[in-house]
Amino acid sequence: MTQTTNFGETKHWLRTARTLTEALPYMRRYAGKSFVIKYGGHAMVNPELAEIFARDIVLLKQVGINPIVVHGGGPQIGQALDRLQIKSSFVDGLRVTDAATMEVVEMVLAGSINKQIVSAINAAGGSAVGLSGKDARLLGARKVTSPKGDLGFVGDPDRVNPQVLSTLGAAGIVPVIAPIGYGETGETFNINADTAAGAIAAAVSAERLLMLTDVAGVLGKDGQLIPALTLDEVRRLMEDGTISGGMIPKLETCVDAVSGGVQAAVILDGRVPHALLLEIFTKHGVGTLVSRGAAA
Amino acid sequence: MTQTTNFGETKHWLRTARTLTEALPYMRRYAGKSFVIKYGGHAMVNPELAEIFARDIVLLKQVGINPIVVHGGGPQIGQALDRLQIKSSFVDGLRVTDAATMEVVEMVLAGSINKQIVSAINAAGGSAVGLSGKDARLLGARKVTSPKGDLGFVGDPDRVNPQVLSTLGAAGIVPVIAPIGYGETGETFNINADTAAGAIAAAVSAERLLMLTDVAGVLGKDGQLIPALTLDEVRRLMEDGTISGGMIPKLETCVDAVSGGVQAAVILDGRVPHALLLEIFTKHGVGTLVSRGAAA
Amino acid sequence: MTQTTNFGETKHWLRTARTLTEALPYMRRYAGKSFVIKYGGHAMVNPELAEIFARDIVLLKQVGINPIVVHGGGPQIGQALDRLQIKSSFVDGLRVTDAATMEVVEMVLAGSINKQIVSAINAAGGSAVGLSGKDARLLGARKVTSPKGDLGFVGDPDRVNPQVLSTLGAAGIVPVIAPIGYGETGETFNINADTAAGAIAAAVSAERLLMLTDVAGVLGKDGQLIPALTLDEVRRLMEDGTISGGMIPKLETCVDAVSGGVQAAVILDGRVPHALLLEIFTKHGVGTLVSRGAAA
Amino acid sequence: MTQTTNFGETKHWLRTARTLTEALPYMRRYAGKSFVIKYGGHAMVNPELAEIFARDIVLLKQVGINPIVVHGGGPQIGQALDRLQIKSSFVDGLRVTDAATMEVVEMVLAGSINKQIVSAINAAGGSAVGLSGKDARLLGARKVTSPKGDLGFVGDPDRVNPQVLSTLGAAGIVPVIAPIGYGETGETFNINADTAAGAIAAAVSAERLLMLTDVAGVLGKDGQLIPALTLDEVRRLMEDGTISGGMIPKLETCVDAVSGGVQAAVILDGRVPHALLLEIFTKHGVGTLVSRGAAA
Amino acid sequence: MTQTTNFGETKHWLRTARTLTEALPYMRRYAGKSFVIKYGGHAMVNPELAEIFARDIVLLKQVGINPIVVHGGGPQIGQALDRLQIKSSFVDGLRVTDAATMEVVEMVLAGSINKQIVSAINAAGGSAVGLSGKDARLLGARKVTSPKGDLGFVGDPDRVNPQVLSTLGAAGIVPVIAPIGYGETGETFNINADTAAGAIAAAVSAERLLMLTDVAGVLGKDGQLIPALTLDEVRRLMEDGTISGGMIPKLETCVDAVSGGVQAAVILDGRVPHALLLEIFTKHGVGTLVSRGAAA
Amino acid sequence: MTQTTNFGETKHWLRTARTLTEALPYMRRYAGKSFVIKYGGHAMVNPELAEIFARDIVLLKQVGINPIVVHGGGPQIGQALDRLQIKSSFVDGLRVTDAATMEVVEMVLAGSINKQIVSAINAAGGSAVGLSGKDARLLGARKVTSPKGDLGFVGDPDRVNPQVLSTLGAAGIVPVIAPIGYGETGETFNINADTAAGAIAAAVSAERLLMLTDVAGVLGKDGQLIPALTLDEVRRLMEDGTISGGMIPKLETCVDAVSGGVQAAVILDGRVPHALLLEIFTKHGVGTLVSRGAAA
Repeated sequence: MTQTTNFGETKHWLRTARTLTEALPYMRRYAGKSFVIKYGGHAMVNPELAEIFARDIVLLKQVGINPIVVHGGGPQIGQALDRLQIKSSFVDGLRVTDAATMEVVEMVLAGSINKQIVSAINAAGGSAVGLSGKDARLLGARKVTSPKGDLGFVGDPDRVNPQVLSTLGAAGIVPVIAPIGYGETGETFNINADTAAGAIAAAVSAERLLMLTDVAGVLGKDGQLIPALTLDEVRRLMEDGTISGGMIPKLETCVDAVSGGVQAAVILDGRVPHALLLEIFTKHGVGTLVSRGAAA
Repeated sequence: MTQTTNFGETKHWLRTARTLTEALPYMRRYAGKSFVIKYGGHAMVNPELAEIFARDIVLLKQVGINPIVVHGGGPQIGQALDRLQIKSSFVDGLRVTDAATMEVVEMVLAGSINKQIVSAINAAGGSAVGLSGKDARLLGARKVTSPKGDLGFVGDPDRVNPQVLSTLGAAGIVPVIAPIGYGETGETFNINADTAAGAIAAAVSAERLLMLTDVAGVLGKDGQLIPALTLDEVRRLMEDGTISGGMIPKLETCVDAVSGGVQAAVILDGRVPHALLLEIFTKHGVGTLVSRGAAA
Repeated sequence: MTQTTNFGETKHWLRTARTLTEALPYMRRYAGKSFVIKYGGHAMVNPELAEIFARDIVLLKQVGINPIVVHGGGPQIGQALDRLQIKSSFVDGLRVTDAATMEVVEMVLAGSINKQIVSAINAAGGSAVGLSGKDARLLGARKVTSPKGDLGFVGDPDRVNPQVLSTLGAAGIVPVIAPIGYGETGETFNINADTAAGAIAAAVSAERLLMLTDVAGVLGKDGQLIPALTLDEVRRLMEDGTISGGMIPKLETCVDAVSGGVQAAVILDGRVPHALLLEIFTKHGVGTLVSRGAAA
Repeated sequence: MTQTTNFGETKHWLRTARTLTEALPYMRRYAGKSFVIKYGGHAMVNPELAEIFARDIVLLKQVGINPIVVHGGGPQIGQALDRLQIKSSFVDGLRVTDAATMEVVEMVLAGSINKQIVSAINAAGGSAVGLSGKDARLLGARKVTSPKGDLGFVGDPDRVNPQVLSTLGAAGIVPVIAPIGYGETGETFNINADTAAGAIAAAVSAERLLMLTDVAGVLGKDGQLIPALTLDEVRRLMEDGTISGGMIPKLETCVDAVSGGVQAAVILDGRVPHALLLEIFTKHGVGTLVSRGAAA
Repeated sequence: MTQTTNFGETKHWLRTARTLTEALPYMRRYAGKSFVIKYGGHAMVNPELAEIFARDIVLLKQVGINPIVVHGGGPQIGQALDRLQIKSSFVDGLRVTDAATMEVVEMVLAGSINKQIVSAINAAGGSAVGLSGKDARLLGARKVTSPKGDLGFVGDPDRVNPQVLSTLGAAGIVPVIAPIGYGETGETFNINADTAAGAIAAAVSAERLLMLTDVAGVLGKDGQLIPALTLDEVRRLMEDGTISGGMIPKLETCVDAVSGGVQAAVILDGRVPHALLLEIFTKHGVGTLVSRGAAA
Repeated sequence: MTQTTNFGETKHWLRTARTLTEALPYMRRYAGKSFVIKYGGHAMVNPELAEIFARDIVLLKQVGINPIVVHGGGPQIGQALDRLQIKSSFVDGLRVTDAATMEVVEMVLAGSINKQIVSAINAAGGSAVGLSGKDARLLGARKVTSPKGDLGFVGDPDRVNPQVLSTLGAAGIVPVIAPIGYGETGETFNINADTAAGAIAAAVSAERLLMLTDVAGVLGKDGQLIPALTLDEVRRLMEDGTISGGMIPKLETCVDAVSGGVQAAVILDGRVPHALLLEIFTKHGVGTLVSRGAAA
């Protein structure tokens, strides 16, 4: 009497086990460290990617990493303004934010998108709490001034009070942050989500600032992905014009974060499913890593 | 050479000291206890009252009480729906809440009103964090059914997970809660703020459920304020018709809370400045106190 | 049917609430800080003032301040010596303390006055523990030498071991200290209560040393109360003779305490009821504040 | 070249080591347990015995036992009353304590004897804090009534609040307690020291109540020391008249303590130097042990 | 200019991510739970499997599980006895263990095999501490008696003191246990490793007892693996003779463990690489699970 | 009726008490300090001395000292190698340790001697856990090179990870360490026990390194025991040839330990019963104390 063994299944099992084993050194290296994740773009808009993102966040928390999510606004703000027939003008790509606009921006960011992300993480088995920069005075901001005109309530973070993040983190809760800031005299400020994420990452001395974008990363002149850049190299690529357009502010955020004490910042392709896990738990990583030295 | 003494000032000083002294026994009695405060109506809409409310909350926290704020929606929801030209029908005083309405309700409650209250408490020197019932799975709900028609996403709380409240409270942070619930299959529910406050008060075994309203309290047949009611007395007054109209669901919430373990529930006149302090720190109290026995 | 409102009462209530609100910023500023209070004179002898004092101490503890009481001897020591027909001589205002006198001084201070204060604080709802400088080696002293003759067991504090104060404070207990010191070879020393309070205030890096006296504070040449003095100004007033008599050692204690790390020292009029509360919780303060710079 | 060995010294050393070794099982058994020690009589009056007592207490604390000392008054109270020409009458061996007498009793107990014991323990290298029953509301009492006349301020303990004892004990401090109680309406009560020790031992569920007396222990009809008694045996010896005189109230205290949760009570001969150590750390023990069963 | 994407690599990455995601629910379910793992047979003898085992243990610890390893002896004991020319007789498959044999058994188990496993776990990035049942009195045993003759120092566990396991576990250390027991009078006992693992699993109320064997699991009459058995079913299969030979004592150990409070016991095929991970982190599981009800 | 007193017994009791009292100052001075004890020679081989040693260790732990035992190998290694007919050659007194020898050394040290010491301490009422340098990566080593030939697996400690020692110590457990080290590439190293003890003592900043030897201590030219040596004096005695032979490496270990932060190292006569207690708890001490200055 013999026992038949299903070799196909065994092969699948082995792959499962091997994958977990390969992830182990990364789990050990990053246990207890904070990862600030800028969440936006396709990864947030696409329902399937959003669900994957939520599960990935829960996994990070489970294996001992301390993820902090900072989300952007997506197309929902524009839609809400349209429905309310509030017109926006733009200066240098920044939406001029008058009081009425600011009110809508805050409601959409803190009242709608933020809660969707919280719900998704909870549904994936985690425990998340949504915050705006007003909560526990997390994110103070001051008005951005532009020579090209008044931008209204567009703000830059100028003080971060990260204590609530460690309170929540220690209680097993993932903080999800809407990029709203409070002004010294009670104003509400609209902050660029990348900038907010960078400031928070610096304030918590994060191990990584992971920026989910809709591009593969930083591309060289030959169109190939550049896997890693030092601060010096970033500066050179900006000067010689290799980097241009929307990638410039993103890289500036990365440079600021790394200068401010973050170990490394990564510009990731959020369109790839599980981009977070791939970056954190595999040898290859994805996207472009910016660090002080050759590689973090 | 003599020293002149300003007797007028001295008199004022003495009053100050005496007041503090009179408040002492209440501070000692309530230290470490949770007070759930349903916040809404004039107290929330009137800017001056709102500022007073925020300072009162900070004071409660300072003297060792653990305040938990649950707020309602006020007229802002109606205004937002109007601006978006979303029409509402009502069944038994409850707004029929379709998906589009729910979206607006959540944005206004969790994204606008909630953050205003948080900001006011922070501005008064405290530290507040805004939560909706989705955050950390605070407030689960199930659909309310009515024989008179489908109410849409109107929900009743059916499970409270108050752990995040003690996490925040222990960290010196005041939780401010928007009455939004999550459903088992991912729905968002609009919960009556009184009901939400009652459910949370029971879940934390609150010392008091304080409901700020726009009336003086429960009035007797003679139009006089009734200062205290037992559960039995409430029942009798309902049966004999003394209590009617909007006061009925409020008292039912009080009865449920007290039955569920809250020491006492108070229907307060939120139009009176510092109604909270008066109720908590003076002999007289204000409004109508509902308790199991003769008086708590 | 209308409801009558008692406007007189409402007015009183409002004042109550406003007073509490005005005290809030002070509560927040001083929470967790140590206040060493030298207690003596009328405030201790007058039964009504003594009861007020006890309640004020309980209030300070309740709102998060850490009060430490150091008391003097009052007329009771003289009475006890008289009854026992022990005669005292004085050198420069200091009682020459032989062994028999020292025994009586200790019994009166540590066995009678100390326990009265403890009982009063307990009766006001607090929890106090009486200590002499011998307990847990709180206050070591060395003999005071005078060119005018042997003072006997009159001592100056030369080492403070404040650990027991934080042990008790953390357990919610107010320490009440009799100014008795222990010598290196087992002697018992009579220490001036002002000096003892100053040494303890410095040892715990107190926020304030509050000295309850029977005068309004430091008076200028014009007989007017001087509300605040810097260390430099104190020196100048001593040099030009404005300050004289018993105020000199009191101010020297203040100067030593502030030089030794206390934020500020205040000479208060203990004859004013609630002098402690007025000083701590109102804008005006009472008495004369001595601090390093212009004002603490 | 040879090395001379001092055999006499070696022998002494060995004895030292053996003694420590023999004490080890007792140290292990009693580590972390509370021992309430009634201290009085010769052991307190004799300077040499008093110094030995202090060192023994420090040793108990060092090896992990939690000693709590309750002391009596000794002849000092009588002397003080004599000097003050306050006359005492006695009812059934209890001093009738009027207000003037109570004042002296308290001063002598709490202000003189208590502080001497505290100083002795500190001098022996420990850290002690003196308490009266008023401190931290340790010992509440009610008036003792007698059919033979009014005893004045003689009290019986009716509530013990031992929290301060564990606060101090956990901080490495030995509590030394004067048997003074506070009444419900502010009276001061003189409590029999044995009774006070018994009540405290029961309140802390002590491992042992050790009563230092001036006799060898309980003697049988044949004049021999009875090493151990059960509660039943005590009752029988009282009934048949073997036990009489001052030993009766002492044994009643032991019986009450053991009935109230103390593991065992021992009547010790305080005239023997190191009676505490002998009782605790040697096989023989000294005096008479009272326990529920045959032997504890 | 286009960017080439390596689709093969991407596919591999995705699989990696998906595997981690699939393991997440198991990580969450088992976080904080103790898993006692009986380690022996091929999994221990084969160097490659041994290295995989060590890495798997480190992974379990990393994701929040608390693994406790109990190992057997393998062929090394026989080899050592052979080299020392110590002959063994067997009674019912148990090696008769005289004093000389016991000495060798202990040295090989606690001094050689145990330290190899510790080293392997350390080399894989974990932190392990080797224990025998003597350490911290972990495993007390009594002599096994057999009607067929004296078995010498073969013992059965009769008391487990698991405190050291939680001390080490809380410090991030994996305990690795050699199945040696101590007797009441100082004997050393050789304990069957399966039995030792079962006793320890019961003592820590383990979530799982995982027994790595050299068979696929429990086979039915048809030679097919039985994936799950209830206690009742085990009994029935033993009675009808389906289970026989060496599987009987293994299943008895499982039954005892489950009866003693372990959630479930699994007989695993240790020849399969990563058998632990497959059992714990995949839907299929491997081997035969024994639980109280239908399936745990 | 008189009571007879047994004076002989009383005398014995008094001696007991006096001895405990004399030990008190040492208990207080050393409470909470770590004592690393090199255990070997007669003290380990002689059954009576071994039992005394175990009891002494338990006593040290009981009175608040933190003992850490490092043991040597004794004659058992040679016997085991003889029985296995493994021949050893020696270079400069060090056993050339090939792989086969190393295997036996490890089994004897970690599997036999270590567990005997653990059992003895447990039997004396303590709680011990045996460790080798592999456990929790306690002791890393590198190969010792000699100009006279390859010594095989003889190692010198080059990194100590003492965290597990404080984990166990805080849990009331005495660590007992076999001098086995792990190499960077997985080798097992045989470390001289004196050297291992010295390295561990330095790593934990021990109060004392106590080396139990089979000599009286360091002898001067006149054959008399030298009670204390400074580092300078040790150097001088080595240079002038007073110290020679096996004492040289022992003193070098002492010098290294004291230079590395140990307060003092003592070479003790382990043949004297209770040598540990005599050294620690008596004025005389035994053996030779090596310290930075004149005497520690």
